[in-house]
Amino acid sequence: MTDLLITNARPMGGAKADILIKDGRIADMGENLTADGVAVEDAGGRIAIPGLVDAHTHLDKSLLGYPWYVNTVGPRLIDKIDNERAVKREYGLDAHVQSMRQSLQSVGYGTTLIRTHVDIDTDQGLVALEGVMETRRQLAGVVEIEIVAFPQSGLMRRPGTAELLDKAMEMGADLVGGLDPCGMDRDPKGHLDTIFAIADKYGKGIDIHLHEGGELGAFSMEMIFERIRAMGMQGKVAVSHAFCLGLPDWNVSQALIATCAELDVPIFTTAPPSREVPSLKRLHAAGVRFGAGVDGFRDTWGPYGNGDMLERAMLLGMKNNLRRDDELAMALDVCTTGGALAMDRPAHALEVGGRGDVVLVEGESVGEAIVTHQPRKLVVTAGNIVARDGASLRARP
Amino acid sequence: MTDLLITNARPMGGAKADILIKDGRIADMGENLTADGVAVEDAGGRIAIPGLVDAHTHLDKSLLGYPWYVNTVGPRLIDKIDNERAVKREYGLDAHVQSMRQSLQSVGYGTTLIRTHVDIDTDQGLVALEGVMETRRQLAGVVEIEIVAFPQSGLMRRPGTAELLDKAMEMGADLVGGLDPCGMDRDPKGHLDTIFAIADKYGKGIDIHLHEGGELGAFSMEMIFERIRAMGMQGKVAVSHAFCLGLPDWNVSQALIATCAELDVPIFTTAPPSREVPSLKRLHAAGVRFGAGVDGFRDTWGPYGNGDMLERAMLLGMKNNLRRDDELAMALDVCTTGGALAMDRPAHALEVGGRGDVVLVEGESVGEAIVTHQPRKLVVTAGNIVARDGASLRARP
Repeated sequence: MTDLLITNARPMGGAKADILIKDGRIADMGENLTADGVAVEDAGGRIAIPGLVDAHTHLDKSLLGYPWYVNTVGPRLIDKIDNERAVKREYGLDAHVQSMRQSLQSVGYGTTLIRTHVDIDTDQGLVALEGVMETRRQLAGVVEIEIVAFPQSGLMRRPGTAELLDKAMEMGADLVGGLDPCGMDRDPKGHLDTIFAIADKYGKGIDIHLHEGGELGAFSMEMIFERIRAMGMQGKVAVSHAFCLGLPDWNVSQALIATCAELDVPIFTTAPPSREVPSLKRLHAAGVRFGAGVDGFRDTWGPYGNGDMLERAMLLGMKNNLRRDDELAMALDVCTTGGALAMDRPAHALEVGGRGDVVLVEGESVGEAIVTHQPRKLVVTAGNIVARDGASLRARP
Repeated sequence: MTDLLITNARPMGGAKADILIKDGRIADMGENLTADGVAVEDAGGRIAIPGLVDAHTHLDKSLLGYPWYVNTVGPRLIDKIDNERAVKREYGLDAHVQSMRQSLQSVGYGTTLIRTHVDIDTDQGLVALEGVMETRRQLAGVVEIEIVAFPQSGLMRRPGTAELLDKAMEMGADLVGGLDPCGMDRDPKGHLDTIFAIADKYGKGIDIHLHEGGELGAFSMEMIFERIRAMGMQGKVAVSHAFCLGLPDWNVSQALIATCAELDVPIFTTAPPSREVPSLKRLHAAGVRFGAGVDGFRDTWGPYGNGDMLERAMLLGMKNNLRRDDELAMALDVCTTGGALAMDRPAHALEVGGRGDVVLVEGESVGEAIVTHQPRKLVVTAGNIVARDGASLRARP
């Protein structure tokens, strides 16, 4: 069943309208719609928004379902990475089970589209990828999952990883990942040449984690730009985090942002309060595609988060000092339609012809819905009802 | 009734213990306590923490109970201040009703001690002060409320305000407030001399809002330090926000922090994600007293927030990039015992002899309690049960 008539909704907090979904797409929006034989849901005057889009997370590594993880990890990035591999072994963490748990929790919060980075390393090989791919199969029609093959433990510093990334793409990963070519791998040329070559071989895109701040991050961005130009990969290479775009030196950061616009480099943020981050308004003004994600949560990296992209819209608003209602709407766009656009899915919108992903949220206005992020009344993926009252209909393993 | 026996609790997430409160103070903590004729509450193994302390808020200005306020306000500080005065008139905002609403909502979240800044200006005179003082009277025994007489609309730039501040202190305000001596009042000498003189006249302390960033904020801090030294007001003058203490230039910010320690200047933060803020770890290392607050919320300034200081501990942790469980405990301390200490209340602690303010929270550990901030099971103020299951026992007006 991918047909559904939602009556008495307020699309984006505006005037009341019915929303008719047929064959998984929004077929009509307006007053007093009827459709013979189509199931009807009364929205009760609630606000309808598009499906939430979690454009940056790590489905394979949350510890959901386990007791609270007491974090005593050291301060360096490498401490966290090495600790995580050790904990995975100790727990016997099953990427399929964990990704099912997180995905279904996110569905309860109204997320209908996810881009996940999945760890590929010489310890565990491709087992996490297999687990998340199995989750993707089982949740088809419930939530769309896009997979980035992610060299979390480094690429050049761990021989054999490049071959595993290549194999991951052959198995069906959607994008090639990368990680801090300087800070992590100590060989930016080797790192970037390798991942661009794999992407080119499979005709796929790239999504690179770039935590490097300030001038170091700017240097890595420039090396990424050079390869996009040389290989004609405009629109195919995204950068996650991109803290360096938040550099206080306006001239440097503006040049980077302008080049992201010129080469169509989508940026994905998790809006961490503790870091300088790309400014929503600056990216918007420059025309850079921009999405957001919850990042990993309840894992060995840190305790915060729960998978709720409506709460993430609030954090994005707080980080960007957005106070006006029209600004809050911009934050929600990044977490829905804008984020999907950054993932090359232009039809993820609450409009006729758009994908039939609809979430009913509580509040007088979109602003209140974001700020209070109360349990979602109803979540619909391509016309299928997948969650009610804050919980996915399918039980978590 | 200010005697209460809480059984089967886990103080600070540790081993199970009973907590006996007599005459509003913690009389005993340990296993298998008994007390004839004293009411008993079974904590069911939940974590007990001290009463939460909201050390910086604005009880007189939330719009709780009103429809969602659609914010279209301009970007400058003065836009927000002028808009607020206009909206207050338009709504006929009653500071007593609004402060009752906010205080009782906060009690539901486990807050038992509040420091509120109350607007004093030549438009509304002392009416907001009278309203909040009435709330303080009505909520005696439920939540302690400390009042700062706050020149929100400026002091030197609005003649007559100094006289109103003086009158406010005579009426029973606890501290003299101030606001951006340079940025707002354009006369740092006049502003600071005036508020220090009023504080001196009444033998009271000061709590100054200082949003000024960078070198400007550092300059105002130095002018504050000079007056503390000259008037011997060590330990009596606090600074709220103090964004300049987050100056990236380590030498400048460290000198300011060291002087805060030397002159015993407590710092209060709201941990805004969008600003540079004083670092929890740096203040802690320097021995500076440090508290936190929810600031104004759901008002004409901005939409975020709800009064929950356990959620604020999470935001404080996120802002300071605290990931380890021992670090999360530091954030909770700032929002409980440490914040009270910064308000000169050293006995606000979960220990024998401490004030009988206890909150039962959900979670396996303090870290989980902070991160998930689920509804509080029980809130006790000086031995009185004041809230259950997330809501104050006294209804909001």
